[in-house]
Amino acid sequence: MKKRIGILTGGGDCPGLNAVIRAATRSAILQHGWDVVGIEDGYQGLYERRVTPLTINEVRGIITRGGTVIGSSNRANPFKYPVRMPDGTEEVRDVSKEIMASIRDLGLDAIIAIGGDGTMLMSQGLVELGAKIVGVPKTIDNDLRATDVTFGFQTAVEIATEAIDRLHTTAESHDRIILCEVMGRYAGWIALHAGVASGAHVILIPEMPYKLERIVDFIKARKTAGKSYSIVVVAEGALPASGDHAVAIKGDETMQDRLGGAADRLARELVKPFGEHDVRVTVLGHVQRGGTPCAFDRVLATRFGAHAVTMVAEDKIGHVASLRGTTITSAPIKEACAKLKLVDPSGPIASAARQIGIELGA
Amino acid sequence: MKKRIGILTGGGDCPGLNAVIRAATRSAILQHGWDVVGIEDGYQGLYERRVTPLTINEVRGIITRGGTVIGSSNRANPFKYPVRMPDGTEEVRDVSKEIMASIRDLGLDAIIAIGGDGTMLMSQGLVELGAKIVGVPKTIDNDLRATDVTFGFQTAVEIATEAIDRLHTTAESHDRIILCEVMGRYAGWIALHAGVASGAHVILIPEMPYKLERIVDFIKARKTAGKSYSIVVVAEGALPASGDHAVAIKGDETMQDRLGGAADRLARELVKPFGEHDVRVTVLGHVQRGGTPCAFDRVLATRFGAHAVTMVAEDKIGHVASLRGTTITSAPIKEACAKLKLVDPSGPIASAARQIGIELGA
Amino acid sequence: MKKRIGILTGGGDCPGLNAVIRAATRSAILQHGWDVVGIEDGYQGLYERRVTPLTINEVRGIITRGGTVIGSSNRANPFKYPVRMPDGTEEVRDVSKEIMASIRDLGLDAIIAIGGDGTMLMSQGLVELGAKIVGVPKTIDNDLRATDVTFGFQTAVEIATEAIDRLHTTAESHDRIILCEVMGRYAGWIALHAGVASGAHVILIPEMPYKLERIVDFIKARKTAGKSYSIVVVAEGALPASGDHAVAIKGDETMQDRLGGAADRLARELVKPFGEHDVRVTVLGHVQRGGTPCAFDRVLATRFGAHAVTMVAEDKIGHVASLRGTTITSAPIKEACAKLKLVDPSGPIASAARQIGIELGA
Amino acid sequence: MKKRIGILTGGGDCPGLNAVIRAATRSAILQHGWDVVGIEDGYQGLYERRVTPLTINEVRGIITRGGTVIGSSNRANPFKYPVRMPDGTEEVRDVSKEIMASIRDLGLDAIIAIGGDGTMLMSQGLVELGAKIVGVPKTIDNDLRATDVTFGFQTAVEIATEAIDRLHTTAESHDRIILCEVMGRYAGWIALHAGVASGAHVILIPEMPYKLERIVDFIKARKTAGKSYSIVVVAEGALPASGDHAVAIKGDETMQDRLGGAADRLARELVKPFGEHDVRVTVLGHVQRGGTPCAFDRVLATRFGAHAVTMVAEDKIGHVASLRGTTITSAPIKEACAKLKLVDPSGPIASAARQIGIELGA
Repeated sequence: MKKRIGILTGGGDCPGLNAVIRAATRSAILQHGWDVVGIEDGYQGLYERRVTPLTINEVRGIITRGGTVIGSSNRANPFKYPVRMPDGTEEVRDVSKEIMASIRDLGLDAIIAIGGDGTMLMSQGLVELGAKIVGVPKTIDNDLRATDVTFGFQTAVEIATEAIDRLHTTAESHDRIILCEVMGRYAGWIALHAGVASGAHVILIPEMPYKLERIVDFIKARKTAGKSYSIVVVAEGALPASGDHAVAIKGDETMQDRLGGAADRLARELVKPFGEHDVRVTVLGHVQRGGTPCAFDRVLATRFGAHAVTMVAEDKIGHVASLRGTTITSAPIKEACAKLKLVDPSGPIASAARQIGIELGA
Repeated sequence: MKKRIGILTGGGDCPGLNAVIRAATRSAILQHGWDVVGIEDGYQGLYERRVTPLTINEVRGIITRGGTVIGSSNRANPFKYPVRMPDGTEEVRDVSKEIMASIRDLGLDAIIAIGGDGTMLMSQGLVELGAKIVGVPKTIDNDLRATDVTFGFQTAVEIATEAIDRLHTTAESHDRIILCEVMGRYAGWIALHAGVASGAHVILIPEMPYKLERIVDFIKARKTAGKSYSIVVVAEGALPASGDHAVAIKGDETMQDRLGGAADRLARELVKPFGEHDVRVTVLGHVQRGGTPCAFDRVLATRFGAHAVTMVAEDKIGHVASLRGTTITSAPIKEACAKLKLVDPSGPIASAARQIGIELGA
Repeated sequence: MKKRIGILTGGGDCPGLNAVIRAATRSAILQHGWDVVGIEDGYQGLYERRVTPLTINEVRGIITRGGTVIGSSNRANPFKYPVRMPDGTEEVRDVSKEIMASIRDLGLDAIIAIGGDGTMLMSQGLVELGAKIVGVPKTIDNDLRATDVTFGFQTAVEIATEAIDRLHTTAESHDRIILCEVMGRYAGWIALHAGVASGAHVILIPEMPYKLERIVDFIKARKTAGKSYSIVVVAEGALPASGDHAVAIKGDETMQDRLGGAADRLARELVKPFGEHDVRVTVLGHVQRGGTPCAFDRVLATRFGAHAVTMVAEDKIGHVASLRGTTITSAPIKEACAKLKLVDPSGPIASAARQIGIELGA
Repeated sequence: MKKRIGILTGGGDCPGLNAVIRAATRSAILQHGWDVVGIEDGYQGLYERRVTPLTINEVRGIITRGGTVIGSSNRANPFKYPVRMPDGTEEVRDVSKEIMASIRDLGLDAIIAIGGDGTMLMSQGLVELGAKIVGVPKTIDNDLRATDVTFGFQTAVEIATEAIDRLHTTAESHDRIILCEVMGRYAGWIALHAGVASGAHVILIPEMPYKLERIVDFIKARKTAGKSYSIVVVAEGALPASGDHAVAIKGDETMQDRLGGAADRLARELVKPFGEHDVRVTVLGHVQRGGTPCAFDRVLATRFGAHAVTMVAEDKIGHVASLRGTTITSAPIKEACAKLKLVDPSGPIASAARQIGIELGA
């Protein structure tokens, strides 16, 4: 049966979004002969009924591009929608019925929703109201249980690794302690992978609140052994063991956080024992989540996009695409997004890091 | 018990070899307090008793470097060793007893052998004579059954993808058919991954002997649809369906092969229907297997290296390190290297390629 | 006075074309308030009166992209134009009057022509008929006298250098002679710069026909000194001293040339003294001229584009933009394109290469 | 006459130092047959008489590496040397006589000093005492009058440009103002080149103290025109017009500076009109000055290194190597280092930036 499907992207930027859109569009058209539309700016566009046709021409060349050609939205939750009132104020409302009506009126037989656990949970809510939605999991932080790996993550790791590679020679030439802050508010996957890949000496992640003395002792021991420089990779959510971890977990990502970021906070502590001329901070920030995806992520995203179409064809509604080993499979949204996939401090990657002598601070 | 272990690398160049050496050395020293030596030039160095101490200092900074700091050998097979005679000629002999004696006299409690299936099968032969050897699988082509992925492969895919990205604009600006030959004599993994990642239009691999008419028709159909350029990714082992496939499989990698390579061969055929000004060839060659490994391969190689030491500690002799899903485990050499892991023409990657409209030529 | 200007690109692909178009468009609109149109596919579009408006929105984001957003043409010469006859054949005609009429009828007060010496000489011909044309010199090979450097060249050098970097470890690990063919049919600038940058041992360029014995002796001397590998960078126009140089210079770039390219030709000679297992060839081909320009070329192209608008404003008709030292200036097309800028065998770069012990083959 | 020369590097890290060392060593040995030693850790090693032989083998493969293989020193000034007293304290002394004695006793016929204006002025002081020193100018910031360009600068520009490229998609997808802080305490060359190359909307440099209102108005005008994101490149020395510029110029580079860096300072101001969720900061820091040099810098550094040997051979004592246009020449240290080469707010690069509509804040 010829279908008409919509594709939407929700949440933050992530290299590979366009590769998913392209693969889903091509597969729907070339393999099934379906019509495809892009829903603009995530669930906001669905509410406002803004769609744009996606053809083979429209998705040409986008596999290499960062961002999302159909736009995204961070705030448009069908169940808590910020509706603009005539007087200019905003009011949060449940617009799920309006959105169900949009789906019907736009003639969408199914929707492929690409997004993080927020977008997935909204989608599940709509599925329970009868919407035909399948999901493609997206998080740069790799912290979704849905899948072994998410696209975008490896790109972030490659970018961070290349940057830390460059910090090595300077740190070594000038006997410096260089802190490099990488993404990861709740999960330390990027820090751990980039730190291992780049030969970092210390890696600090949110899952393992650090003891400052351990770090200081470790760096001092290196100095004693004649290595007067150190590279410390700090996840943005890394916190001291004594700190109020709960606060950070609850807090939103704000400017204040950035200005008093994890690396700057630690730098201020390290200045005391090591002297301020020796400590330097690099904050990679959004450099890690923009731009062209690495080949690994393009392949993964392409496979997810093609699989999403298969899920629609096979009526796997309420499921997300998932990589398990070398195979793409499907998992129920509910299971997949129930809990964040955090680094296990005694799991394989953290253990490998410890085995080769990397200090994890805890 | 304090051990003394040797590390050797065999076979062709592969980004990540030094990352394995570094991780194994660090783990053996820092976690277990063992002594580590590098055996120079693979089994040749073991025969000639050439070893060099590996310390933390010796392996510093090598994680980013291509090649292998302890040298490799392509021809030194303990069971068919090219022994140089006093008259200058070479004679092939079984020197396995001499090598067992080397191991004993060098005081090596165990050996970590990093290599392809050739090196693994030699190692298994020595294990059967009583040698304590564990393996780390290595192949740029990703065609070992031992593991989901081998290190070096992803680097090759990233390099090839970046190159093909650049071919797109030129092909498009000048309405050309550009053929890019990538590695893969027996297995098409690199071609398939790099082709999918770079938005290639046609991908040709050894496992799927191609029908020239299919390719010509596909390119003509593109022209008819207004897309007067095409990117064709050709594995070096790709052959026409009518060709004598068996010969190529048996043949060694020689200059003659190169001069009449897979891409050049196809180019000569495509010149006929499309005219010679339209067809261009790029042969990436050894660019794909040298230089710094990508972060993905560094992490995988580091995990393999650390795990090899664990295998020694746990007496998993005759086994190789293996990635399954997100976990590193061990597999018997015999099983792991029995057969090449080829691309399944109806398996997940080839299917995904087909789903998004890539022509596979068969 | 408000003007209406046209921009066109002619000849082969070159990273930075879009950066010129973007800068010229922005400068014309933002600084002068002019109207800008893109003339599609070079002088072909001018003949066929195909133009497209260029606005700030149209040129957004194109600075990073390879190719040219307004298309190019290799064959559309106003004075020798391949006119398609009603019977389907082509006839070469002088259509310069028709093109002058196009300029008038399209209301173009001036044209910015971006192209190589072919495009520049055509433009000069039209200038002599009264057309208001200024030029931006373009050649990936850096062989125009018009300017110290052309955009695109540095990108090619960076790409080739990165590739040769990767060849080093493999060559060294396996004691091989690796030949890397880079662009440069008539001028060896890319080979010379990339060879010096990547630590090549031998560099062969068209301006210095090579003596095979010199190369063989040099590689043998390296072997004697214990360095059993060598990297040879070969410009595509490099030829043996005994060869018929004139033929190559006259010949067009054809498939036959490629199949018997400069590196393959030399490889066949080197196989004799060194044995076929030791010699390998990489042909970078169009990888060097596609894709995103490096920052150096983006800045140069941007400055050229902005300067071209200044040239129009200052009525510097019949001139091309030119970099001299750190300044952009203008030069008459006639002088600028009279002769190719070839590498001087005793000039500064070749001398520096010789000083550090690089073998230039002559 | 056979000479014995020493090479030293002084000051901060800069990609290309090893390329200079390699070229000078190779040229001295291969072209002249001289002996070469590396003086360890700049003038400190000369004072302490620590030298190490530099041979062809010692410099092999270092052209691609960041840092300096012979070490550097930031503080060792022959005329104000921090001498360690027996009681552990430091005293600043003139040790120029001891250093002249070192030169004599080490048998150094000449010294090639690679460094910034600090190192050059010290060298000039020693030249006036009779030392035979030639200089190679070094500054990542490109702010030496000695030469059109210094090596290391282009690498920094390429790295910053690649980072800012990646910020674009994120800024655009999320309607954000992203500030990227790049190097440049006194001179804005890196900011200006990387900003132009990456399509930045605003570029702020030390030479042009910025007016906050201009920036706010510019970003607001962009919003009004429908472009709700902006990329602002900020040199680390950029300051508001109202700020106390003199203090910053005098101040040393301290942790306090970093923690209250130029981008963070501006971010705090932009949060007021634009809201904190919209403003993000990336601080590239030392990522810009470490790691492998780009090809441009390798060629320039190689030419400088070879030319330094020529300067010694031609007795051009008290001179530095200098690029003028496409030629390497020599300039007296005194002239070359008299004053910093700052960006001229009405010079060619700033004008080109303005012509294409970049806001420079002043």
